[in-house]
Order: sequence, then C-alpha cells, then structure tokens
Amino acid sequence: MSNSLRSFIDIAADSHFPIQNLPFGIFKPKNATARAGIAIGDLILDLHVLEEKGFLRIPEFGARAVFGADSLNAFLSLGRPAWRRTRELLQHLLAAETSDLRDNSELREQVFHQQSDVTMQLPARIGDYTDFYSSFHHAHNVGTMLRGPETALMPNWKWLPVGYHGRASSIVPSGTDVRRPRGQIKLPDATSPIFAASRSLDFELETAFLIGPGNSLGEPVPIDRAEEHIFGMVLMNDWSARDVQTWEYQPLGPFLAKNFCTSISPWVVTLDALQPFRRPLPPQDPEPLSYLRAETDSIYDIELEARLQTASMTEPHVITRTNFRHLYWSMSQQLAHHTVGGCNLQPGDLLASGTISGPTEDSRGCMLELTWRGANPISLPGGESRKWLEDGDTLTIGGYASGDGYRVGFGKVTGKVLPAVG
Amino acid sequence: MSNSLRSFIDIAADSHFPIQNLPFGIFKPKNATARAGIAIGDLILDLHVLEEKGFLRIPEFGARAVFGADSLNAFLSLGRPAWRRTRELLQHLLAAETSDLRDNSELREQVFHQQSDVTMQLPARIGDYTDFYSSFHHAHNVGTMLRGPETALMPNWKWLPVGYHGRASSIVPSGTDVRRPRGQIKLPDATSPIFAASRSLDFELETAFLIGPGNSLGEPVPIDRAEEHIFGMVLMNDWSARDVQTWEYQPLGPFLAKNFCTSISPWVVTLDALQPFRRPLPPQDPEPLSYLRAETDSIYDIELEARLQTASMTEPHVITRTNFRHLYWSMSQQLAHHTVGGCNLQPGDLLASGTISGPTEDSRGCMLELTWRGANPISLPGGESRKWLEDGDTLTIGGYASGDGYRVGFGKVTGKVLPAVG
Repeated sequence: MSNSLRSFIDIAADSHFPIQNLPFGIFKPKNATARAGIAIGDLILDLHVLEEKGFLRIPEFGARAVFGADSLNAFLSLGRPAWRRTRELLQHLLAAETSDLRDNSELREQVFHQQSDVTMQLPARIGDYTDFYSSFHHAHNVGTMLRGPETALMPNWKWLPVGYHGRASSIVPSGTDVRRPRGQIKLPDATSPIFAASRSLDFELETAFLIGPGNSLGEPVPIDRAEEHIFGMVLMNDWSARDVQTWEYQPLGPFLAKNFCTSISPWVVTLDALQPFRRPLPPQDPEPLSYLRAETDSIYDIELEARLQTASMTEPHVITRTNFRHLYWSMSQQLAHHTVGGCNLQPGDLLASGTISGPTEDSRGCMLELTWRGANPISLPGGESRKWLEDGDTLTIGGYASGDGYRVGFGKVTGKVLPAVG
Repeated sequence: MSNSLRSFIDIAADSHFPIQNLPFGIFKPKNATARAGIAIGDLILDLHVLEEKGFLRIPEFGARAVFGADSLNAFLSLGRPAWRRTRELLQHLLAAETSDLRDNSELREQVFHQQSDVTMQLPARIGDYTDFYSSFHHAHNVGTMLRGPETALMPNWKWLPVGYHGRASSIVPSGTDVRRPRGQIKLPDATSPIFAASRSLDFELETAFLIGPGNSLGEPVPIDRAEEHIFGMVLMNDWSARDVQTWEYQPLGPFLAKNFCTSISPWVVTLDALQPFRRPLPPQDPEPLSYLRAETDSIYDIELEARLQTASMTEPHVITRTNFRHLYWSMSQQLAHHTVGGCNLQPGDLLASGTISGPTEDSRGCMLELTWRGANPISLPGGESRKWLEDGDTLTIGGYASGDGYRVGFGKVTGKVLPAVG
C-alpha cells in the first residue's frame, strides 16, 4: 500500500474514505437485510454480494460466509492475517489498474451503494464495553477541579491504565438522538437529593477499538501480542450527566451518569490503515511494570475535533481540537492490562480511551473541562453561550489522520439532545 | 400451587427441587446438544424433547421453539404470563395425579435425565451484568474498615441502590475452577506497586436475578412493573482480589479485582416459585424518592450459607449463614433505579445483590468482613485457619427457602481455587 495507490472510483481529496482507508461497517440497504461493507469515497462496497459472487476467497474464511450477518463479529474472530488479506484483496479490486469491477458495469450496479441511500448500524455485537481514563490532561483537569492541583491524580494513575466496565446495551450508532436523562441530583447546599432532568449534560470526545480474536479466561494477552487482537478504531461520544455522576459515583464509579447512551461512529478504521500514522509512544515516568512495556509500543497521530450546533445555528462550530496522540497509555497497554488478571476479551468487545484532552485550554475533550465546570461558558457564533449541552443541541465528533495527499478518516459520530421525558 | 402438591417422582424431603420449585436451566446431555430443562428431585425434565413432542403448547410461544437453544434468552423475552403458564403446565405434567408422563415409561425414558449424567451450563447469554452494593451491613462493615464508623456509609448510600457495571464475559457456571489472578499490588509501606499473584483472594456471597423482557432505551421501567421483568434468581460468588482492588479502585471502581471470574449457580429459581417466601420490605429511613417506592415492595426469606473446604479437609465447613432478607434495597428498587435514566435492560441481563451480610459477626458474606481484613483468621476443623482463600480451597454457596414440609432450593455454586499462572 502506498499513497500513490489510486482507485477507479472518483474520490475527493478531502474524503475520509480513499483507497488507503477502506473502513469496515454494517449497513442496511433499502429493502434488504443488513450486511458488511467498506466505505470508498461516497460509496459502499457490498462485501456480502462480493462474497456470494466468489470474489472474496480468503483461506481463513474456509467454507464460511462472514459478511452476510448484521455484525462483523465472525470476521473479527478470524484475526489479523485474515483481516490483512481481505484488505489487500479489496484494495486490489478497487485499484485503478484492476478491471474486474472497473469494467463490469452490471457487477458494479450490484456491489456499490450510495452511502446516502443506506442506514448505518453498529459494526459489531458488542458483548462487553470498557472505558479507560487514559488522557493525562483530562484526568489532571478533572482531579484539579475535584481535589485541587496537588492531589489531582490518584497515586495509581501513572502506574496502570485506570478503567471501568461500561454498559454495552446502550451503545448506539451515530445519528441516534440522545434523550436527556433524569436522575438523582444533590444540589450543593441541599441536605437531600431531588429527582430531576440532568442540568449538566456533557459529551466526552473519545476513540474506541474493537477486539478481534480475544483470549480465553485465565490466559492473559502479553503486550507484545496485543495488536493481534485490535481490529480497528471508531470515534465515540460518551454522553455524561455530570450532576448525576457527582452524587452517585462514590465508591464504585459512574453508573447511571453514563449508561443512558454512548454513541459510536459506524465505520471501523483498521489498524492496518493507520500504520502510516504510527508514532513511538513517548517515555513514561515512572517506567511501567514489565507487563506494560513493549519494545515498539505506539500511539497514532489522529486529529480529532468536536463541533456544536444549537437549534438556532445554521452550521456547526468547532469547540475543541485535540489529537489521539495526547493519550498517556497506549491501546496495547490498555489491552495487556485488561487481560493480565485473566479476564477474557471476546470478538466485538469495545475498549474506549476515555476523554481525550490535549495540553491547552482549547484542546479539552468535554464541556466539564472546556467551561471549567460552568465557570467559563463557551461563546458561540450568533451570540449564544453554553455551560452544558441544551435540548436541541447537536454534538458531532470528527477525526482523521493526514497522509501525503490523502486522509484516513473516521467520518463522524453525531447526536442531537432531546428533552427529558415526563 | 400449594404445599400439598405432590409429584409422581420420588423426591427426598430435603431436596432443593420438589414440584413446588421447578427451576429452569441449560444442560448438555452426553452425545446431544445443550437445551433447557427443569430440575425435579435428582432428575431433569428435558423441555426441548417435551416441546418437540407437542406437550408445551403455550400461546405466547406462537410457532417458535424456545427450549432447544443453549440459553433461556428466547423464553426470558416472553414475559411473566408465558413463564407462569409454562410453570403451571409443567407442575400439572409432573403431578402425582397426571398420567401423561407417569404411565408412559417409553416417554419418561426420553424426557428424564439424571442430573449426575449431564453438564450444566450458564442459563442465559448474559449481555450485561450489573452488581449492586445493597447490603447495609456489608457496606457499613467495609466502610468502617476503610474510613471508620462515623463515615462508614457514603452520603448517597441510603438514597439510591449503589451499583456498578461488571464484566459479563467472565461469568462461569458452578463447578468451574477459578485461577488466582495476578495483578498490581501496592504493599502498605511501599512507594511503588509490584506485579504478583493476589495474596488476598476472597469470595462474595451474593444472589442475582435474570432479566426478562426488559425495556427500550429511554423508557424507564416504573417500580410497580419491575417484577414483570424479573424472571428468577441464582446464587453468585463474586470472586474478589482485595489487594488488587485496594490499589486500583479509585476513582472509577473495581475493575481487574473482580473481572477474572464470577460464578453462578445453574438453576434459575423463578420469582413465581418464591412467592410463598415473600415478605414486606421493611420501612426505609430516609424514605426513598418516589420512583423507588412501591406499595407492595418485597424481600424474600431465603437462607444462605457459605462452606469452605481446604485440600486437606474431608468435608466442607460452614463459615457463614445469612439471609437474602438482610438486603436493604429490593430487587424492584434496583431495577427501577437501573432504568430510571433510560438505560435499557435486555433478556438475559444479570443484576446482582452485592455481598449479603447479616447484622451479626457470623452472618458476614465475605472473608474481608469475617476475618476483619485478616485480623481474626477463621479457624477450621482439623486445625487450619484462613485469613483469605488459599490454593486448593473450595468455596461453595448454598441456599433455600423453607416451606411447610418442603424446600425451594437453589442448589449451589461452587469453585476451587487454582494457583496463579507463571
């Protein structure tokens, strides 16, 4: 693969989905069942039809059909050699110099869909979902607000990738509206809590990765083999009700404050597509314990931003710009830590980064930090301002890695806030 | 149903599985695929065969076969009217006065298995698993150890059923050995953590309930309708590595300390079978917010015990006796709280009680409390003692409700501790 790779499909220079990318997703055409596809420019290549027609003879598939289901789980379970072979074959089929599809208009009619004509679904059946807390700047900002700068980070934070189990059932694909939750809130001067709609609804700009083969219970994945289990990445918005969180989270962590909705982008950008954007993981101090150290551990240079559009605005306004490389802990470290006690990961599990904040005030990944708990509201074009998200607001997270003349993009994850029920 | 109900099957007076119980489970006969059954005495009635032969014509099933799969999920999704109708039909078929099975020895040969001949599996595909912290005595004891008696309970504890999301993939059926986990441990006087096998492996005596139909995202289940979504209960051992937990749990809650293994008993005792043991929920102070109040909210009188057998002992020794009715928060309150912000529950989800401790020293539900963090080791017959679980120890939790001349029992959940790897 190189950046001179070209497809016979017309692709705009700023498209997120050139032939260098080829992210996988699950889409539902009108009048047909959901199936797997890859995004190419404004189109989707239908892997189910392609497989049925015999174009995807991958040794690891054996006699199985893997792309006709409404999840990528079967494909995820096959592992990196099968993923890479499939990707290479698809790049070949889409290349400018390959005639199979290019010159067969009848076939092209059958295997290509306009992205605007289909409905995107979740890419996988997500069995378990874990959220980490791996951005130093985010953890430090939040800790400073709660406890002051001296004890902002807990003593464990630089020794292990802190994480917790999230709720898998309420993960939704981009475009799903999010209902403002109601819950118990204890106002600062009150002696008892009230039950009310959240007054401090927030987003969290995150990425997440999907697990491939996984491991058996009791058999940790060594860090040097962690990437064999990472299929690819999506964008994630971990919607959060800060007032609910403040009252409920001690001592067992966030619960209702975050389980009412978590949105992810539908296209999974493979780790293979991200290799040109790999950078060495900066030195960590203190040096991690050996099970968290890998010779070639990496971060990825992926630009990320969040855009807010209120009901009265005509276009979205960028409220923060950050980068995946601001994370302190790598995906491999997260995965090795997750399994080191024997916990089993399974195909389709989702492991998220936690809010990604950069070192500057304008690179913070959530309203809590951007407004410093409401003290410094965000000013929007048109004169509105926001301490927290309001009903009718649409929050969109986008991101891409910049290659030489092309982008490997994630598309977006977007959602609009609906008023609370009742 | 009454306690004069009798089956044509011989059932010992102290059996956990008389005709008044009829718990559901998934079993795998030798040389056949896993399917659903109910326990009756020492036998299992094969619901898959019974369904195939046309004995289970339940209107709610429609044309579906629900008992041939390796999980109860399809049955769980049908709801209480279907569950109750099935149970009544099965009680009729097994009654002493019903001849269909009683007098057909060929049919009996096909539909009955000896429990000792089969392998029990998990009763459901568990999508999400939540663990509550609903025993006042447990929360108070643990809080006293960590913070002293004055601030033992967090301010939120009596206002809401504190809970957190657990790991579904590592839930295993009774009889599965548990591997002692390794992890980061920070010794009290050390400046940095070490990586080592846990030195304070614990059990937690819990119960858990399986969710039936569940709710859509954004649509809370009102507390008065909560029991429509509770299919039945199992026993649970939430194995815990206390040293790992101490170091990792702030600020987001337990993670690796509890996700290496969680064991449940294989037979699901239905809420219908537990109705004779229903007791009014004692008054709560402060009075809960209205979404947590139900006219007829209940606890259940279920006796519970934990037994420990070391490698050198010839029989297990009871180390604690407690009761489900010691819980402060009811299952309906847990379920209503879980969904009040809009979180969706799905068929097969598991909601657990948290460690169940009674008010006395000998009714505490885990080693942490029983030994007061190792200060008062448990003395065992034969001269051994235990601060924590050691390799080769077998921990078994049992429980039943006592009727007039019969027991509605849960069987047991048991597991043996294997040494850490490496």
